[in-house]
Amino acid sequence: MAKGELSMNLATLRNGWSFAQMVEGCLKHGVTAIAPWRDQVESVGLDEAARIIKGNGIRVTGLCRGGMFPAETAEGRQTANDDNLRAIDEAAALGADCLVLVVGGLPGESKDIAGARQMVTDGIAAMLPHAQASGVPLAIEPLHPMYAADRACVNTIDQALDIAGQLGEGVGVAIDVYHVWWDPNLAAAIARAGREKRIMAHHICDWLVPTNDMLLDRGMMGDGVIDLKAIRAMIEAAGYHGPQEVEIFSRDNWWKRPGDDVVRTCVERFATVC
Amino acid sequence: MAKGELSMNLATLRNGWSFAQMVEGCLKHGVTAIAPWRDQVESVGLDEAARIIKGNGIRVTGLCRGGMFPAETAEGRQTANDDNLRAIDEAAALGADCLVLVVGGLPGESKDIAGARQMVTDGIAAMLPHAQASGVPLAIEPLHPMYAADRACVNTIDQALDIAGQLGEGVGVAIDVYHVWWDPNLAAAIARAGREKRIMAHHICDWLVPTNDMLLDRGMMGDGVIDLKAIRAMIEAAGYHGPQEVEIFSRDNWWKRPGDDVVRTCVERFATVC
Repeated sequence: MAKGELSMNLATLRNGWSFAQMVEGCLKHGVTAIAPWRDQVESVGLDEAARIIKGNGIRVTGLCRGGMFPAETAEGRQTANDDNLRAIDEAAALGADCLVLVVGGLPGESKDIAGARQMVTDGIAAMLPHAQASGVPLAIEPLHPMYAADRACVNTIDQALDIAGQLGEGVGVAIDVYHVWWDPNLAAAIARAGREKRIMAHHICDWLVPTNDMLLDRGMMGDGVIDLKAIRAMIEAAGYHGPQEVEIFSRDNWWKRPGDDVVRTCVERFATVC
Repeated sequence: MAKGELSMNLATLRNGWSFAQMVEGCLKHGVTAIAPWRDQVESVGLDEAARIIKGNGIRVTGLCRGGMFPAETAEGRQTANDDNLRAIDEAAALGADCLVLVVGGLPGESKDIAGARQMVTDGIAAMLPHAQASGVPLAIEPLHPMYAADRACVNTIDQALDIAGQLGEGVGVAIDVYHVWWDPNLAAAIARAGREKRIMAHHICDWLVPTNDMLLDRGMMGDGVIDLKAIRAMIEAAGYHGPQEVEIFSRDNWWKRPGDDVVRTCVERFATVC
C-alpha cells in the first residue's frame, strides 16, 4: 500500500501568509490536505475558512487545538470546557478529521501531576458527548515529557491510550514523531494503538541536535535524528495509512523563509525521507 | 525511619571553589557526604582527593561519571571502555558507593536509537567484570527524554531495570527526580526497582517553569514543580533509605552565587521541602 498523502499543518507556515495564501501555496505544490490552528481560522473567519477549504476540495486532517483542561478552580475548568465545545463546533464546520487535544500541564502552583492528569480525563469526558454528537473524533496528542509541567501532562502513547480506554468511542491519539521518537516502548505502544483502533493522526518533523529552544526549534524532516521511515512502518503495520501531517515550529529558521520554499521543501523531503 | 542524609553532588558547586574548599564548605554546614565529578577529582589528583575525603570521614555517594558507550566504530567503543575501566578504579580509590553511568546518545549521524541502546547494554556488560572485581556498583542513570539524542538513550527507570536485569548483579539505577518526575509509570517503576534491589542513588533538584536551558537551568529544591516528598515516599516504600544527593546544574543562577550560600540553601531546603 502506498504511503498516505502529505498534509500541511499550518503552524509550519507562520511566515505572514494569510489563510487564503496558505491554501494557495499548498495547492501550488500539490498539497491538498491541511491542518489549521484556531487562531488562523479566526483570522479569516470560520465561514470564510470553510468556504476556502470546501471550494478547493481541501481535506482537513485536524483542527489544532482543544484541551488545556487543568485549572485551579472549577470555574477555570468550566471555561476550558466552554472553549472546547466551541472548538468541536469549529472542527465540525471545517469537516476536520479530528480535533487535536493538547491537554495542558500543572495548574497554577500545583505540584500534583496525578491530579492534573485526572483533570484531563475528566475534561475529555465532559466534552465527549458533544464531540460524538457532532461527529468529531478527539485526538489526544501526547507531548514530549519536557512539556509535562506547562503544556501537556500526557506524555506517552500508552498513557493516552489508557485515558481513551476509560472513555470509550470517539477518543484516540495523534502520534507526533517529535514527541514520541525516544520512547523505549514505542513499537509496542503504536501496535497497541492500532489494535485498539485509536490512531487518528500522524504528525512529522524532526528532532535537531542541538535543539536551541524547547518549543520553537523543531527541524525539517531529514535534518535531525528521527528515523521517520521506521516510525511510519510501525504506524502502517498498526493499520493506519492516513496522511502524514507536517508540523514544524521553527521561529529562527523555517518561519523566516518564504512560504513557497517551505512548502516545496516539505514536499521534497516527504518524497525522500518520510 | 528518618530520611536519609543530604549528599552534595559537587556539580552543584561549580562556582570556582577548589576541591578542598568544596569539602570544607560542605562540612561547615554539616554535610558529610559528597559526589564528585571526575574532572573535579582530577583537578586535585586522585590521591589527594582520596586523602581529603578519608581524612574528613566523608561518604562518597557516587562518582560521576562513566558511560558514553555508543560510538560509530569498534575503536570508539573500545576507547569508551578503556575510560570506563579507569573510572571504576577511581571510584574504588575514593570508596564511592557507586559509579554513575550516563550512557550516551546516538553516535555520529546515526538515527538508530535501538542500535545505540544495544551498544549501551554491550558496553556495561564489558565493564561489569572489572566493576564486580573492584566492588564498585554501576548505577545506570536514566536521563530525561530530552537528552535521548545527545546524552543518554536510556530514558526511563523501567528501561534501565530491563538492562540491569539482563546483566545480573552489580548493576542498578540512580533515580534523579529531574529526569523521571514526569513518568506516568513512576510509582510502579520505583516499586519494581526496589523489589529488584536495584536502587543505588536518589538525586534531587527541581524542574523550573520556565526552563530556560535544556541542560544548565535546573532548580533548587522547592523552586519548581516536582513533588519531592511524594517521590521520596515512593523510594522509601521501595526500601531505599540512603542519602538524597543534590545535583543542580545552574549556569545563570546557583553557579554564580557564593558556595556558602548554595550549601546553606541546600541544607535549608532539604530540611523543609525534600
